[in-house]
Parts: sequence; structure tokens; C-alpha cells
Amino acid sequence: MTQSNKPLRGIIPPMATPMSTPDTLDVEGLNRLIEHLIGGGVNGIFVLGTTGEAPSHSYELRQQLLEKACEFVNGRVPILVGITDTSAVEAVNFAKLAKNAGAYGLVCAPPFYFRPTQSELLEFMLHLADNVPLPLYVYNMPSLTNVAFAVDTTLKALEHPNIHGVKDSGGNMVYFHALRQALKGRKDKSLFIGPEEMLAEALLLGADGGVPGGGNACPGLYAELFKTATAGDLKKTVELQANIMALSKAIYSCGEYGSSFLKGVKCVLEELGVCKALPAAPLKPVSDAERRRISDAFAKLNFPPAWTGAAVAAK
Amino acid sequence: MTQSNKPLRGIIPPMATPMSTPDTLDVEGLNRLIEHLIGGGVNGIFVLGTTGEAPSHSYELRQQLLEKACEFVNGRVPILVGITDTSAVEAVNFAKLAKNAGAYGLVCAPPFYFRPTQSELLEFMLHLADNVPLPLYVYNMPSLTNVAFAVDTTLKALEHPNIHGVKDSGGNMVYFHALRQALKGRKDKSLFIGPEEMLAEALLLGADGGVPGGGNACPGLYAELFKTATAGDLKKTVELQANIMALSKAIYSCGEYGSSFLKGVKCVLEELGVCKALPAAPLKPVSDAERRRISDAFAKLNFPPAWTGAAVAAK
Amino acid sequence: MTQSNKPLRGIIPPMATPMSTPDTLDVEGLNRLIEHLIGGGVNGIFVLGTTGEAPSHSYELRQQLLEKACEFVNGRVPILVGITDTSAVEAVNFAKLAKNAGAYGLVCAPPFYFRPTQSELLEFMLHLADNVPLPLYVYNMPSLTNVAFAVDTTLKALEHPNIHGVKDSGGNMVYFHALRQALKGRKDKSLFIGPEEMLAEALLLGADGGVPGGGNACPGLYAELFKTATAGDLKKTVELQANIMALSKAIYSCGEYGSSFLKGVKCVLEELGVCKALPAAPLKPVSDAERRRISDAFAKLNFPPAWTGAAVAAK
Amino acid sequence: MTQSNKPLRGIIPPMATPMSTPDTLDVEGLNRLIEHLIGGGVNGIFVLGTTGEAPSHSYELRQQLLEKACEFVNGRVPILVGITDTSAVEAVNFAKLAKNAGAYGLVCAPPFYFRPTQSELLEFMLHLADNVPLPLYVYNMPSLTNVAFAVDTTLKALEHPNIHGVKDSGGNMVYFHALRQALKGRKDKSLFIGPEEMLAEALLLGADGGVPGGGNACPGLYAELFKTATAGDLKKTVELQANIMALSKAIYSCGEYGSSFLKGVKCVLEELGVCKALPAAPLKPVSDAERRRISDAFAKLNFPPAWTGAAVAAK
Repeated sequence: MTQSNKPLRGIIPPMATPMSTPDTLDVEGLNRLIEHLIGGGVNGIFVLGTTGEAPSHSYELRQQLLEKACEFVNGRVPILVGITDTSAVEAVNFAKLAKNAGAYGLVCAPPFYFRPTQSELLEFMLHLADNVPLPLYVYNMPSLTNVAFAVDTTLKALEHPNIHGVKDSGGNMVYFHALRQALKGRKDKSLFIGPEEMLAEALLLGADGGVPGGGNACPGLYAELFKTATAGDLKKTVELQANIMALSKAIYSCGEYGSSFLKGVKCVLEELGVCKALPAAPLKPVSDAERRRISDAFAKLNFPPAWTGAAVAAK
Repeated sequence: MTQSNKPLRGIIPPMATPMSTPDTLDVEGLNRLIEHLIGGGVNGIFVLGTTGEAPSHSYELRQQLLEKACEFVNGRVPILVGITDTSAVEAVNFAKLAKNAGAYGLVCAPPFYFRPTQSELLEFMLHLADNVPLPLYVYNMPSLTNVAFAVDTTLKALEHPNIHGVKDSGGNMVYFHALRQALKGRKDKSLFIGPEEMLAEALLLGADGGVPGGGNACPGLYAELFKTATAGDLKKTVELQANIMALSKAIYSCGEYGSSFLKGVKCVLEELGVCKALPAAPLKPVSDAERRRISDAFAKLNFPPAWTGAAVAAK
Repeated sequence: MTQSNKPLRGIIPPMATPMSTPDTLDVEGLNRLIEHLIGGGVNGIFVLGTTGEAPSHSYELRQQLLEKACEFVNGRVPILVGITDTSAVEAVNFAKLAKNAGAYGLVCAPPFYFRPTQSELLEFMLHLADNVPLPLYVYNMPSLTNVAFAVDTTLKALEHPNIHGVKDSGGNMVYFHALRQALKGRKDKSLFIGPEEMLAEALLLGADGGVPGGGNACPGLYAELFKTATAGDLKKTVELQANIMALSKAIYSCGEYGSSFLKGVKCVLEELGVCKALPAAPLKPVSDAERRRISDAFAKLNFPPAWTGAAVAAK
Repeated sequence: MTQSNKPLRGIIPPMATPMSTPDTLDVEGLNRLIEHLIGGGVNGIFVLGTTGEAPSHSYELRQQLLEKACEFVNGRVPILVGITDTSAVEAVNFAKLAKNAGAYGLVCAPPFYFRPTQSELLEFMLHLADNVPLPLYVYNMPSLTNVAFAVDTTLKALEHPNIHGVKDSGGNMVYFHALRQALKGRKDKSLFIGPEEMLAEALLLGADGGVPGGGNACPGLYAELFKTATAGDLKKTVELQANIMALSKAIYSCGEYGSSFLKGVKCVLEELGVCKALPAAPLKPVSDAERRRISDAFAKLNFPPAWTGAAVAAK
């Protein structure tokens, strides 16, 4: 973070939510996962996002996760909290809990039942920005919210002083690069890429960081790529990205897109001794055969402990 | 209901939620709306569905609406309660509140953030059916939940003794008629059509009832069509349906599809003196010009008081 | 046709194209199929539509089919010809061939590579209407052309004197009924329903006819339903429609939607001795097991010869 | 091309088709455009693709364009020819014309009326590969063909000796990078990126070239970026890409996505004196106001003649 005045930069994994049962938080697993992430050198942690399966959890569990995560992290890295909700009232309520728990900022995708128009989307974000007590980041996630932020809408939202940046998980690099060009040189606004398949190129071309799901499993790999990419080391970055692609191929084929992310990540976390491979309802648990297939594929990658944080898990 | 042993049959409007402010329930308006509906001869009331804007309301407001509605209806007609949620835990929690409040049954659409596969969808519905304390109705609403129940999935769900029927708002009549054929002669399962544009044909061909949004405004019109259609009076039914199409054309053009329903219905309710034309956030309120346009279009229909319940509103 | 001045009315099956090889017309099969259809009492024949697999055929084969069909029909019923094309020039060229061959009218869906806006769609249709030498019918087929005619666009197109009606295969009955209401009482414009699952309701509520794919297999069944529905015999119409649903369930499950229609229809035609079950490339031929499954399912329906035209095939 | 044994590499613009009228080729404009492209240093020319508006042209015009382009290019750079068609027979027919005219290779997207399954898609491509007389390149263009090649399908197709590579215009970089990883080190297969917004990253990470629509207008800019990117000059490549983004923003906002490409490119070509800003039917011509807006935006970019080839146009 020495290269920039920006408060938020680098690798901020969307943390998986360790579960003891389909609706009980695994508190010890959470502690291990947080140590695993911080030990791997991440620059922040994003809780209760898509990979955190926030919409599937009860509000009670969401609050418990939030408070325990803030307690365990204890200020070592900034915590971003997903407040995405169909109800603006509930989103603002949860933002207040996040402030009380000591979180750094908030991430919010569009309301995802009724389809807002672009003007309704802007109005919704500005309403939140006015009413939440922490910095707000816009979360573009059209494959699950069924509405994509237009470039213009995003740029208008970013004019609000309490909207500090964008996490783009849309996978549409035309949108991403339009934002990137428009925000070039802006010290007060940050741009993060979601899909790790585009992490290298996003960073090489000037994005501020990434929110890679695979960062749950191998935080050190992503942290290293962030360093090489921001140092302009093209050759090394391309090599590291090839490892990310290999990881992605090995573990993200566990069911259909969307749940494949969640399930594959949790299988590796189980393999590493961090927490169980148990998704929240309504997703089904992974079969033993599938878990074994993923463990084997992961083992074959033969990643060094600096990437997988195996030392932490071995404790 | 004399023609059938089925406990639930006929016109069950998806009740709009009267609002005093974007996040405050209009309790008096609610009372007037319930009298308006029962006075018009509806066979049941469905609260907290899509037209009720349930996903946009806080849980506190949802609970308040549920309890007040049950109190005001006071057993005169059965009340169905929407429990659609992305979290199975929250759906079951709300089902228990519905039971305590005295509701008759529950309606649940698929979880709508992560996209379930058909087998996950079935599992979700069976999980709910096992865990909720009231009869459950499956709610097919693919345009907003982004997943459509397959015919097979629906029929498998209907084998559960606590799944009592289907409300199909998908607008895909190939699906609807496949269900209709499969359920022919089943006394214990009910089939309701959502879109009122297909109400006449659904009833003429043997559906058990409809859940028409326009039933909020003109309950008597829909109740009359239900009688003529179930009596096999083709000519009269086609005539009444033409009035429904005219109503639809007059009032459902208020913004884009989805919100047009909500907004148009509430404009007419304001015109009839029932409640204000105020949608829940994140939808924007209707402009004065738009409200006037709809009032004028509605006035030109010149519907009789038996359809619009004008006497009730005049009180 | 005695009940109306309309030149085109009733059951007009979208004729399958009998093939000897994946790119050779089966001329004798075509002759048998035409006798089968006319013998079953259809009111017209629509060649080179979706069920006719027009886009998969070479232009040479399309022309051969057109000319042979006109020769074999020899004026006994009107022939409609699909001229749908991505190129307006080619569409007009084919329309001229249709005129020369003696066809009655033309059917055209939107150009289906570039996505036209509604105004471009209207302009395209008006351009064709001005330049083709036969009556033109608009073909709404959004599932394959990826653009749906809006109600307004359709009504504006219908103001052109050479646009004589609409074939709606969209399956969206909200659109269909909006058109139906708007065209009520118009003697010079016709409205046809595509999907046979909605044939009964379309006719009962006042449509002019249907273009059912299953009419290839059982023309007599559809012709009979047309008579009962237009006579207002609700009970009999519902019974006949149940048979159509049973046919649909038996034969249209042969592969995925779209190709299931084509393949299922051709399997039954083979069973009836009319032509081979051979789809045009790029669709794959049906497996023997699948063909047998469909033959068995069809046999179990035990339809009378008046519906299946078995006598014709037995010749 | 000295860095690789691959026969096809670098910038291969999808050539716009100059028109005198909506259905007449502008032969002189074509000659000027080809000189403009070759003068700008492109490595090949792709005729009759999406930017070439192939599906909108009559077959006669397509053949004329093909033959004139080959004549004017006269072997100076390789010519790729789009043979995308709904009919496999017509695609093979056109491939033979391309061979006769002297083209280098063929590009084919999926058949785009009926939706093929992945296995049908593979079968279609292998059928073509077996039957066309020139090297075949797979064209992934899901936004217009409505079917996306899966990674597995693409890799299976690439096992055919006559399938030499892929042009990916899908914009889904997850797909693109999966292919890129799989083809790494393969001397006999080429990977090209379509959308120029991702040109820099594709080349930096190892793609063989790009097919940028903007290469019609400013061939020199793209040719220069290809050189800096393949030389590993990250800083210069990012700067050049910023100019491509500026060009894209200036000229591709002329109507909706899809037609915006076509129309914006042709407006700049008119401004440069190459050919008229006339799209093929069914697209509407650009208004004078829109053309002026684009001319002004383009002028403000103040690109050097080495990029715009202004000298050629000034002749």
C-alpha cells in the first residue's frame, strides 16, 4: 500500500463462511480461516458476499459471522461487509451492525427481486450512500442480480462522496475497462476485479485490486501476483496467473457455475484442515466422490506452502 | 365453493400493501383494502406476494402486515402468506409467524439469488413442506426468480402431502396446461393462474382459480368471471375477459413490466379512495401526470360499482 | 370458411419437409404428406416455416420444395410460404419464386442475426410489404429469432394493406390476447396461434386459426377441434384439446424444445408410412430406440383413423 | 511473423463492406478500404464477418465482395472469409467460392436459427472441416448466434487437422483464458480475440492476434499495439490500449451494441474519405447529426496519420 494513498488496495478475498451444520456457524473454523488468510498476506477480507453465501444465511447467523470476524481479525486488515438485500431498510440496518462491529466498509449489489431500471438503481445506491455509516462500494454482479450497472450509472454513483469504489464481478471486460479508463488518476475511488481468471490483466492495466474466490484456498498465490503485477513484472505475472488458471480448472468444476465456486473452495479448505466442505442450504453438500476428486486435483498442483498456507492449517 | 371439495378455489387477489411512507404500513388503508376485497366477493386473499412487494419490505413491516391483515379479515376468507426468501431458515421462521397469526396457507417461490438446479429446487420445496406448520403452495415466478419449475419437478413436489397446489405466474401456458392435464381429477391439489390476461382460458379449461393483480382494484369483476367460467358460460366469460383486458391496458402501462402492475394497481386504489399510490422502495413513486393519466383511463372504462366496489370506498 | 369473409382461416399446419438424405428432398414423401394433410381436412398448408426446417435447407432445395408443393396441392387449399431470411434481398427474391409457383401468401419472421430495434423491425416488415407480390403475414417467433414483436409494432405493421395478419408462435399469451382484442371485428386481418398447447383457448376466445406442428401427424384431430371451438362447444373442445395435450406429451419429448417438435413429428410420420424420420442438418437423426419409444407412445394413444389419416397412409 | 511458425498471426480487421446503395457494393470504396488497411500494416483481412454485415447481404453481393477483395489484395496479406450460415450446404458452397477466389482460410460461427446442443455444434464444425477446401477457424459469437462454444467443445473441434484456430468474440474472458492455457505451446493452432477492448490483455497474455472492428478505421494503431505487446512492452501497450478505448468511446456509441460497431466504423471511414457511412438493410442509415457527432469526436482524438492512414485517403 506504499504506492498509493488509497485506503483499500490489493487482494481482498470474498471469505467463505465455515459451517458446522447447514445453518450453524463454525466459529473455530472461522478463526482458522481468518488466520489462514492473514497469514497468506491478503490486504483485506470481504465477508458476507456471494462466496460467503450471505443470502442463504439467516440474519442472525449473518450478524454472528460479522461480529466474530471483526473480533478475530482485530484490526489487522480492513473488513468489508456485504449488505446486499432486496429491502433497503434491511440493508441500512445491517450497515449499522457492521459499523458497531468495527468493519471498515460496505459492499452492496443491486436489489435482486424486482428489476430496477438504471435510474432506480442509481437512486437506490445514492439512498444507501446517504444512510449508511461506513464507506460504500458498488458491487456489480449481473449473473445473480439480473441487472448490470451501466457505465454511466456507475460513474454517477461514484460522484457521491460516500461511494468509494466498485467491485466488478460481471465478467464483462468492456464495462470494466470503461470504468478503469474513467477512474484513471482518481486517488479517492477504487476498482476491484471479481473473477480471478481476469486478475492478472486487471492489475497489469491498472486496477486497484481483486476479490478472488480462490484467495480463500491459496491466499499467498494471489498476494504474490498482486506484487508482481503492480511492479510491472509481466513475465512473472503471466506465470503466476497460469497457476491461478490451473487452480480454477482443478477446483471450480464442482457442480454448475456459481455453486462450483463455493463448493470447490470449501473442498480445498477441508483438505487444508481449515473447515468442513459444507455449503449453506439450499445448496446440496458435495458428495464424497466429488470431494476426493477435488482433493486429488488440488494435490496434483503441488503448490508451495507459501501459497496454500499449509503451515497454518498444520497447527 | 359448493362445486368442489377443494378447500381453496376461486379468486384470491395478491393484495397490494398500502403504505403511509416508503417504509411505513398504512394500517387504515389496509383495513379499507380488505373490506374492498371481501365486499367484492373474493374467495381468499394472498398477502406478501409480488404485488404485495414483500421482498422490498423490512421483516418487521412484513410481520406487522401479516398480523393486521389476519386481524382485519377475521376468518371471513382464507389468507395465504408469501414466505419466499433466499434463506430457508427465514422462510420457515416466517411460516411460524403466519401460523400464529391465523393464516390459512403459505406460498413460496424458489430462492432467488443463487440459481438452484431442478433437484435443488425440489429439495428446497420438500424441506419447506416438512418444516412449515401450514399447507404450502408452490409459486412459479421465473421472470423474477430466474428459475422456472419444470413440469416434472412440480409434479414430484406435489406428491408431498403438505404441498397442496401451485400458483403459476410464469405466463408459459405450455407448462400450465401440462400441469392442468396431470392434475385433472385430483381433489387434493389446486392450480391457480397468475396473469389475469389468461384468467378466462385457465378457468374455462379447468383451473381452480386465479390470483389476479387487478383483483385489488376491481374484485367484483374477477369474482363474476369466476362464476361464469365455472358455469361453462363461454360467451359471458369472453365478454368479461374483454373488460379485464381493457383494465389491464388502461392501468398496467405505468412503467415497465413488473413495476407497472404494482404502480397501476395502487393508482386505481388511490382513485377509489382506498390507499395512496405509494410503492415501496426501491421503486420510485408515480408522477402526478402518470397518476392522472391512469385515473382518466380508469374512469373511461366506466365500470359498474359492483366491479369497483365504489360503495365501499365512498364510505 | 362460411362463417367469415376472411380468405384465410382454420388449421394451417406448418408442413414438415420430407427428406431422402440430409440434403435431398423426398418428393414422393412430400406427395404423400400433402395428401395426408388435405385428406385430414386442413384449411391451408404453410411450407418452409420452422417445422419445415427452412433455414437448414439450401436455397435450391427450398425452391424445389416450394414448386413441388404447389404442383401437388394444385389449388385445393391455400399455400403459405416462409420467406424468413437475414437478408431482405433474399426474402424478396424468394417471395417472387413463391408467386410464380402459385402460392397464396407469405410468412416472414424478423431477420435473426443482427438484433433489430422495434423501429428497425417495423421498417423491415413495411419494406417487405411494399416489395413482395403476395399477401404478407407477420411471424412472431422470439425463441428462435431473439426479438419479439411488441404489440405496438405489430399493430403499426398491420396498418399496411399488404400485411394481412399474424402468426404468433411466441407462447406469450399476454401479447396474443392484446392483439386479439385490438383486431376484434377486423374482417381484413387474421390472427393465428402457433403452439398447439394453446389452440383451444385461442380459438374459443376468437382467434382465426392455428398453425399446429402436430397437424402434420393428426390433421383430422385439429380440424375437428377447429369446428367445435368455432361452434362454441366448450365441452367438446376441452376434450379434444386433452387429446392434443396427450399427443404433445407423447411425441414432443424427442430431444430438446425446438428440435423435439421436428423430430417427434417426423417419427410419427414414419410410423404412419408418410415419410422418413430424417431431420435436416445440423440436427442429428433420431436413434432407433427413441423412434421406437415415440412409436409406442403414439400407438398407445389409439387415435381413430379420422384423426391420423391412417387410410391415406395405408394406400 | 518472424517470431512464430504460425501462418496466421497479428491484426486481422473484420473488414466493413462499403456500399453504394443498401444492396449495391461500392467497388471503388472497397479498393480504397483495402489499400487503407494494408497501408496501415494489418497482417490479414477478414471479409464477410459480422462487421462485414454478411448475413444482411444477398449471396450474389457476398460473392462479388469476395472476388473483388481477393483481386484487390492480390496476395499481399492472407484473406479470411466468413461462411457462417444456417445451412451447412450453403456454407460449404461458399467455401468453394472462397477457394476459387484465392482466399487463405474460412471462419464459421454456429448455425444461428435452431439452437444446436454442444454435440450438434461439434458435429456441425467437424462436418464443415471435412468438407471445405481451406483451413477453417471457429468463430465464437454468442451474442448474435445465441449459442456459446463450451471450452470442451472447442478443444475437441481443434483436434481436427483442418480446424486451425478460434476467433473469440464472446467477450467472456473466462472462456478465452481457458482456451489460451490449453493451447499454450501449440504451433498449429491460433487464438484470436474479437473485442478490441480486451486486445492488449489478450496479446500480453499470449494470444496470437486480434480481429478488431476499429482496425477498419485506424489500422496503424492496432498494428503498433500488436508489436509492442508481443515485444512485452507493458507500459507502451497500456498507453496504446488507452487510445483504443478512447476511439471505442468516441465512435461505438452510434446506436445500440452490435449496430453501433458497424455504424461508427463506417462514419469514420466516410470522414477519412474511404467510403460512405451506409449500413446494409435492415439497419437504418445514420442521421446527419449522428455522423457529425462522431466526426467531431473522432477529430478530437487527434490521432497521427500513421494510425488513421490519412495519407491514403487524401489521395
